[in-house]
Amino acid sequence: MSRTILIIGIGAGNPEHITVQAINALNRADVLLIPTKGEEKSFLADMRRDICERYLTNGDTRVHDYAVPKRRADGSYDDGVQDWHHAIAKIYEELILEVSTDREVIGLLVWGDPMLYDSTIRIVDHVRANGRVAFDLEVIPGITSIQALCASQQIALNRIGLPVEITTGRRLSAGWPEGVDDVVVMLDGVEAFRSIEDRDAQIYWGAYLGTELEVTLSGRLGDVAEQISETRHQAREKNGWIMDTYLIRRARATESET
Amino acid sequence: MSRTILIIGIGAGNPEHITVQAINALNRADVLLIPTKGEEKSFLADMRRDICERYLTNGDTRVHDYAVPKRRADGSYDDGVQDWHHAIAKIYEELILEVSTDREVIGLLVWGDPMLYDSTIRIVDHVRANGRVAFDLEVIPGITSIQALCASQQIALNRIGLPVEITTGRRLSAGWPEGVDDVVVMLDGVEAFRSIEDRDAQIYWGAYLGTELEVTLSGRLGDVAEQISETRHQAREKNGWIMDTYLIRRARATESET
Repeated sequence: MSRTILIIGIGAGNPEHITVQAINALNRADVLLIPTKGEEKSFLADMRRDICERYLTNGDTRVHDYAVPKRRADGSYDDGVQDWHHAIAKIYEELILEVSTDREVIGLLVWGDPMLYDSTIRIVDHVRANGRVAFDLEVIPGITSIQALCASQQIALNRIGLPVEITTGRRLSAGWPEGVDDVVVMLDGVEAFRSIEDRDAQIYWGAYLGTELEVTLSGRLGDVAEQISETRHQAREKNGWIMDTYLIRRARATESET
Repeated sequence: MSRTILIIGIGAGNPEHITVQAINALNRADVLLIPTKGEEKSFLADMRRDICERYLTNGDTRVHDYAVPKRRADGSYDDGVQDWHHAIAKIYEELILEVSTDREVIGLLVWGDPMLYDSTIRIVDHVRANGRVAFDLEVIPGITSIQALCASQQIALNRIGLPVEITTGRRLSAGWPEGVDDVVVMLDGVEAFRSIEDRDAQIYWGAYLGTELEVTLSGRLGDVAEQISETRHQAREKNGWIMDTYLIRRARATESET
């Protein structure tokens, strides 16, 4: 007698990134919840609506918008994020009780893949822990911006038999990660690539990946870092927001694979 | 006047992992090349054919099987892999010239995503370098087994603000990677998880992810490592092959994110 929550990865921005599994999930939902997240994210909300218009063929599915609270900028990063997740969990809980009944199926649309630098699974776990709504959960994977980047740049993420680290700009700005020569950076608000000492490293950069705004650049870090930085600033000014991702690959410093 | 090669990610095993972009790519192709790779991989060849049957609506598309040579087991790992890639590049080159004409579109179906522990992009780069066939290239991303694992286990790959390393069993068996507490292992023929000293780490394991053979296990490493090993052996004996992936997450040893 419980509800079902579907956390649906819808891809990195190209509406054709969506999987058959995700389309079927959209159409199984009685209710789809669409976050509206301030002006800079209205582009993303529009794209969610575009996806619903393209692929939602179930005329009985209701679509509900909801407002997402801003994250507290004061205090520690961890505490701020935890508080923010609990606040969103409260919103989900109330919204789910308000707009759906027992046994109904609720769909949450997530950019990229719910597994990667997204907290929807954690937030839904908080809703479960709160104990006011019982539900089954299903997670549907989606194409991430890392995959969109590699597809656009026509490269493999890893070199043969070598590891790759996925990290944040905040972390990379503290120094090159140990033990790897291939690093993917998500969520870089600080342009950490500018602080990399090895100017001979290769960078493969992309913003708005998969969308019609997509822009990519690649080359030797020393040659293209300034151009990437300028392109970022111009694009952010023009579009009001930016989301970008990059891979940096340096000459192998680690021990040889035998 | 050149051909077009499409490297098409078709997902990790569930036919519904396929994206709309990949379906459209299949149907743009004049020729689809399907590798047959010895008995243990006939399951995978069958699944490629299943995908063609489900999604290929273009009656003019030709489907060609081809045999993939075995990788040399002698010599160094790197040299063996490089030789193998050049051998496959020769096969591609001859096959493309034999089965397609100028301006035609050739589709290569890749399990998972061409960017992750797959060499199709590298092999096609060799074909280009050989200079006998001119072509444009497009890469279409697909759901990877890592994503299928996280979706099945209903977990995020990364903890809040923390990095993740993707590596091989061979590397993990040489020791826990520095600077990360979350490690994804692909291609583990050596059961490297058994050698991890921290028995309190959590492991999230899955085999045949996305397929009807899927089996997953998770828990404290000290509690489930033997069970995973036994399950692997039994499944490999029963099915004749195994492909598995896992995430190991240990208590945070790295510095706090502030």
